[in-house]
Amino acid sequence: MKILLIGATGTLGKAVAERLGSAHDILPASRHDAHLPVDITDTASLHALFERTGNVDAIVATTGSLHFGPIQTMTAGQFHIGLMDKLMGQINLALIGQHYLSERGSITLTGGVLSHDPIAGGVNASTVNAALEGFVRGAAVDLAPGLRINLVSPTVIRESLPAYGPFFPGNDGVPAERAAGAYVKSIEGAQTGQIYTVWQ
Amino acid sequence: MKILLIGATGTLGKAVAERLGSAHDILPASRHDAHLPVDITDTASLHALFERTGNVDAIVATTGSLHFGPIQTMTAGQFHIGLMDKLMGQINLALIGQHYLSERGSITLTGGVLSHDPIAGGVNASTVNAALEGFVRGAAVDLAPGLRINLVSPTVIRESLPAYGPFFPGNDGVPAERAAGAYVKSIEGAQTGQIYTVWQ
Ligand SMILES: NC(=O)c1ccc[n+]([C@@H]2O[C@H](COP(=O)([O-])OP(=O)(O)OC[C@H]3O[C@@H](n4cnc5c(N)ncnc54)[C@H](OP(=O)(O)O)[C@@H]3O)[C@@H](O)[C@H]2O)c1
Ligand SMILES: NC(=O)c1ccc[n+]([C@@H]2O[C@H](COP(=O)([O-])OP(=O)(O)OC[C@H]3O[C@@H](n4cnc5c(N)ncnc54)[C@H](OP(=O)(O)O)[C@@H]3O)[C@@H](O)[C@H]2O)c1
Repeated sequence: MKILLIGATGTLGKAVAERLGSAHDILPASRHDAHLPVDITDTASLHALFERTGNVDAIVATTGSLHFGPIQTMTAGQFHIGLMDKLMGQINLALIGQHYLSERGSITLTGGVLSHDPIAGGVNASTVNAALEGFVRGAAVDLAPGLRINLVSPTVIRESLPAYGPFFPGNDGVPAERAAGAYVKSIEGAQTGQIYTVWQ
Repeated sequence: MKILLIGATGTLGKAVAERLGSAHDILPASRHDAHLPVDITDTASLHALFERTGNVDAIVATTGSLHFGPIQTMTAGQFHIGLMDKLMGQINLALIGQHYLSERGSITLTGGVLSHDPIAGGVNASTVNAALEGFVRGAAVDLAPGLRINLVSPTVIRESLPAYGPFFPGNDGVPAERAAGAYVKSIEGAQTGQIYTVWQ
């Protein structure tokens, strides 16, 4: 399969590329240092990307920024960070990308455990990750017949523990390679509208 | 209790006002025709509202617009309608309103069944309603101690069947009065971070 991977240079993206690379043709994309430059928060940039790639068999996103901070001082502007980046970035990708999928093509987006397992300072992440779950459920019943969409929801990635560990007390994380398995399941499997949790 | 009710003139809001009105002091607010005018998509308007009301014991929102339409032709701009109105409107209300709650005060927001039970053309609603569930879970662990927040998630309201019934095949709806019970439970109860589903 021809698989477009947005966020290919990131912690999760590298693991997904490695796990899929032997069996499939990966098109790696991100804002910097990628063969295919794209900023998914910018719809014009996404249109330009798909004009370059043409149809693909799978679209995968392992990207998305959020705002972390206490709700007591959170502003609407700070809240917009996650809404416009991790949420609307991936939604833009799906809305535009659906028209560049081959028959029976799939879209796989990335959420996260905070949708259901909240932490202090994580309300923007809980909102955005839950929104992505709703998006995938709503999109699955409305996409053109044969197209599929799923969400991978990882807990904290073991490789990211040095950066995020203190926010997740008692959580030993999962290796990126294990989370990558959920992307393979979404791409090579037959299901749609599913949330693949990789929470332990 | 002194209860600020945003959306007091709407289908759900009228039922909530009626059910709470005998035991509590309701402050009805909405953009038009309300004693307290407010547009919750506008943070300045919200600040002005709370300067007028002072502290309240409960904040309730029964409001929020969404975009309905097929995903095949949906644009980012159409998607923003639900994000900026039903989602960010209620989030603005919570972010600002938390500072005008009395000790042990509560916030009750409104989602909807489409978060988990999607329909054709409903992807914006599924996303926004799920996002509100995540917001409430994330906020509940992060608000100042003693403050509470819950979400009421109704299925289609029986009184709204003439307008929305065709989108919900086989769904007989629930009376607004029954949904209103969930708001009473949130306000007078002790729980926080809960999704009160009124799905049948
Ligand atoms: N790491 C974790 O512990 C963890 C746990 C649960 C969920 N997640 C979620 O998984 C996703 C990826 O996390 P990660 O830790 O792997 O992130 P990361 O290491 O920071 O990598 C992000 C990747 O996305 C690209 N990117 C960022 N913004 C972009 C944009 N607007 N358009 C296109 N590409 C963009 C980055 O490259 P450029 O900067 O060059 O664009 C990079 O390739 C995020 O949604 C995160 O919330 C992560
Ligand atoms: N009705 C249903 O079947 C149903 C089912 C599930 C969920 N819901 C959800 O329940 C909520 C209320 O639905 P409804 O049918 O009762 O709506 P509605 O009858 O249209 O009433 C909406 C209320 O909110 C006010 N309002 C609208 N925008 C506002 C804003 N920006 N700032 C302040 N007030 C605003 C309206 O008054 P003004 O126009 O004067 O501001 C009105 O009082 C919505 O979130 C809806 O998605 C409804």
